[in-house]
Amino acid sequence: MEIQLWREILDPYVLAVDELVVKFNHIIDEYRKMGDYSPIEQVNGRVKTISSILEKAQKKNIALDNMEEEIEDIAGIRIICQFVEDINKVVEIIKKRTDMTVKSEKDYIAHMKSSGYRSYHLIIYYNVQTLTGTKQIQAEIQIRTLAMNFWATIEHSLQYKYKHNMPEHIRNRLSRAADAIIALDAEMSQIRGEIMDAQNSFKIKANT
Amino acid sequence: MEIQLWREILDPYVLAVDELVVKFNHIIDEYRKMGDYSPIEQVNGRVKTISSILEKAQKKNIALDNMEEEIEDIAGIRIICQFVEDINKVVEIIKKRTDMTVKSEKDYIAHMKSSGYRSYHLIIYYNVQTLTGTKQIQAEIQIRTLAMNFWATIEHSLQYKYKHNMPEHIRNRLSRAADAIIALDAEMSQIRGEIMDAQNSFKIKANT
Amino acid sequence: MEIQLWREILDPYVLAVDELVVKFNHIIDEYRKMGDYSPIEQVNGRVKTISSILEKAQKKNIALDNMEEEIEDIAGIRIICQFVEDINKVVEIIKKRTDMTVKSEKDYIAHMKSSGYRSYHLIIYYNVQTLTGTKQIQAEIQIRTLAMNFWATIEHSLQYKYKHNMPEHIRNRLSRAADAIIALDAEMSQIRGEIMDAQNSFKIKANT
Amino acid sequence: MEIQLWREILDPYVLAVDELVVKFNHIIDEYRKMGDYSPIEQVNGRVKTISSILEKAQKKNIALDNMEEEIEDIAGIRIICQFVEDINKVVEIIKKRTDMTVKSEKDYIAHMKSSGYRSYHLIIYYNVQTLTGTKQIQAEIQIRTLAMNFWATIEHSLQYKYKHNMPEHIRNRLSRAADAIIALDAEMSQIRGEIMDAQNSFKIKANT
Repeated sequence: MEIQLWREILDPYVLAVDELVVKFNHIIDEYRKMGDYSPIEQVNGRVKTISSILEKAQKKNIALDNMEEEIEDIAGIRIICQFVEDINKVVEIIKKRTDMTVKSEKDYIAHMKSSGYRSYHLIIYYNVQTLTGTKQIQAEIQIRTLAMNFWATIEHSLQYKYKHNMPEHIRNRLSRAADAIIALDAEMSQIRGEIMDAQNSFKIKANT
Repeated sequence: MEIQLWREILDPYVLAVDELVVKFNHIIDEYRKMGDYSPIEQVNGRVKTISSILEKAQKKNIALDNMEEEIEDIAGIRIICQFVEDINKVVEIIKKRTDMTVKSEKDYIAHMKSSGYRSYHLIIYYNVQTLTGTKQIQAEIQIRTLAMNFWATIEHSLQYKYKHNMPEHIRNRLSRAADAIIALDAEMSQIRGEIMDAQNSFKIKANT
Repeated sequence: MEIQLWREILDPYVLAVDELVVKFNHIIDEYRKMGDYSPIEQVNGRVKTISSILEKAQKKNIALDNMEEEIEDIAGIRIICQFVEDINKVVEIIKKRTDMTVKSEKDYIAHMKSSGYRSYHLIIYYNVQTLTGTKQIQAEIQIRTLAMNFWATIEHSLQYKYKHNMPEHIRNRLSRAADAIIALDAEMSQIRGEIMDAQNSFKIKANT
Repeated sequence: MEIQLWREILDPYVLAVDELVVKFNHIIDEYRKMGDYSPIEQVNGRVKTISSILEKAQKKNIALDNMEEEIEDIAGIRIICQFVEDINKVVEIIKKRTDMTVKSEKDYIAHMKSSGYRSYHLIIYYNVQTLTGTKQIQAEIQIRTLAMNFWATIEHSLQYKYKHNMPEHIRNRLSRAADAIIALDAEMSQIRGEIMDAQNSFKIKANT
């Protein structure tokens, strides 16, 4: 497939990512303008590169004709939260929206991957308007805490370096790091609970 | 009305402008990725300032409760085209979209304002998702050529300086400038026709 | 020359353009924050594409080794003004800065090109910091009015379409359009003078 | 001091932050274009709000006349690294630059704050060009790992909530979390060493 055709195929995904980043970033603004805590800390987006798409298609034995249906993460959005509990809040917010539909979800937080990877994944359907009409595309939304993202960033850069041949002792260290991250997030959640308590007791006082 | 409340009212308009600018800019990309001429040259957006809204409400005797219904240009998008003919093309593109609905349109090109102002205005309905659900807002889309925009920019800065008390002789010069702009755009349209002819004859040759 | 080497060569130019756009845009902010009229209306920047560089090198018989010295517009900044008089003000501002040095200048406004092209061009030296140290690069700054830019945009898109074989009758129309633009800018300058007068008399009154 | 004056005072800091963010982000690009690992992962900048400046001036008993000299972090840049070792590399890069001068540095990594805060701080002098000439301003550059930043973000949001009256048991949890972060970063550094070894042995092989 030539570069021109790739551009035309990927173009609606670029648009979708741009629109979704604007929309999720605006949620942060909305909370902040109300003076409230935002469950979203940060939003990033990217369209998969042609070479990553080809690599994935080959690895998973996907015909290029089915690519847009079977590769669900051509458009990718990453949402970073401060606390584990914020993740469910973000999932709820997404499910309530009428401009996107959840196709499937995977909870890699309740069910950690063997590598130690943890995140909440949603595959959504999203409509974009092109010059030839409405096009429904899929996008993957990854939702994770700052700590999970920290781990995933390190792991990704190691994966990239070792090209799936990661030495055992490095894999072990990553796994231990993942455990430490879980402990950290648990510690943080504990604090979050106390913040909420503190805030509630304050409001109760204020209302008496 | 206090600043906090204004922020909450204007927030969905900020979101709408951000989304619309992304969407119209993407149309330019889409044409360029296909190697085609884009009828849109440039896109800008802005939300009316609180002081402009108050000024307009007072001038037009609009109660603040009806403000969002009666002030149709709280969200404003400006689309700049190279040629007069592109304007209708852009209007068509907008009318075909399913993510916005045209409420009304004013053709100040066929019917120039007495000041010399020329542009095509559309008022659209557009839905944004807020934390409290879907909100339908209005936005004004102004479509004009580079030349019309040139004139309007100058006129706006003079209006701003003279606060609606523009001296007669300046008004006259602006009016003469507007005539010159019409002549210019007509000259340009003439060339556009020939470009189209040239391109068509090229394609016919290429197909023989 | 391979793509990787091109990237390394062009990289400091990308940086220079990014820095210069930030700096010139900030001048607009500075005037506006003081509540003053800004002689700069708009700033754009671009790095010449590899294919344009190659085309220019071939056309002007420039060896690739001398490319960075002899092609002075690899980095390009365009500054748009409302009035012809603003152009000299912008030139002055640039000449006073200590973070760039003017190498040469061409006044295509006093001396219009035969095509009808009008703009003020400055070639500057500008230092950027790279990982291997300080690098002095050249950049071209084009300064023009909105009207001149309008004409140049149209002419550029026609040049691009006709690839330097522009038919005589189109060239004639462009030339007539250029005359109209000169008349327009003159008309505008006349008004600018009156604005200045009006403002001065206001200040005199205010001081009495 | 009125808002207009504040704007004029803070304006050069806004410019400095914009320029510095462009410059540090470009370092990431430069490494990536060479296909190399970038010691900088992410760059952010901000200008202190007026209310934070006033708060700090009051707390530290600083007269507003000395504010620009004594409050060194009016302009703030945050540089995030993947590994602890990257931090020194970034400090070196900054010290080599000729467009900024290091005034002072604080190594809160070797010498952790009692709260558990860890980061490397540099105060730099940096020149910006304003309409009235060159102005030397100060800026604070904070350099930290992803893990340190994770901790600092959480701590900052808790500080903000408790307004410096953080309950003992929360302070203890934060302190334990800080210990976990140190362990994490140490684990990560260990892996980094092995990556470097792996890469070196690869290069040695490649050269034989």
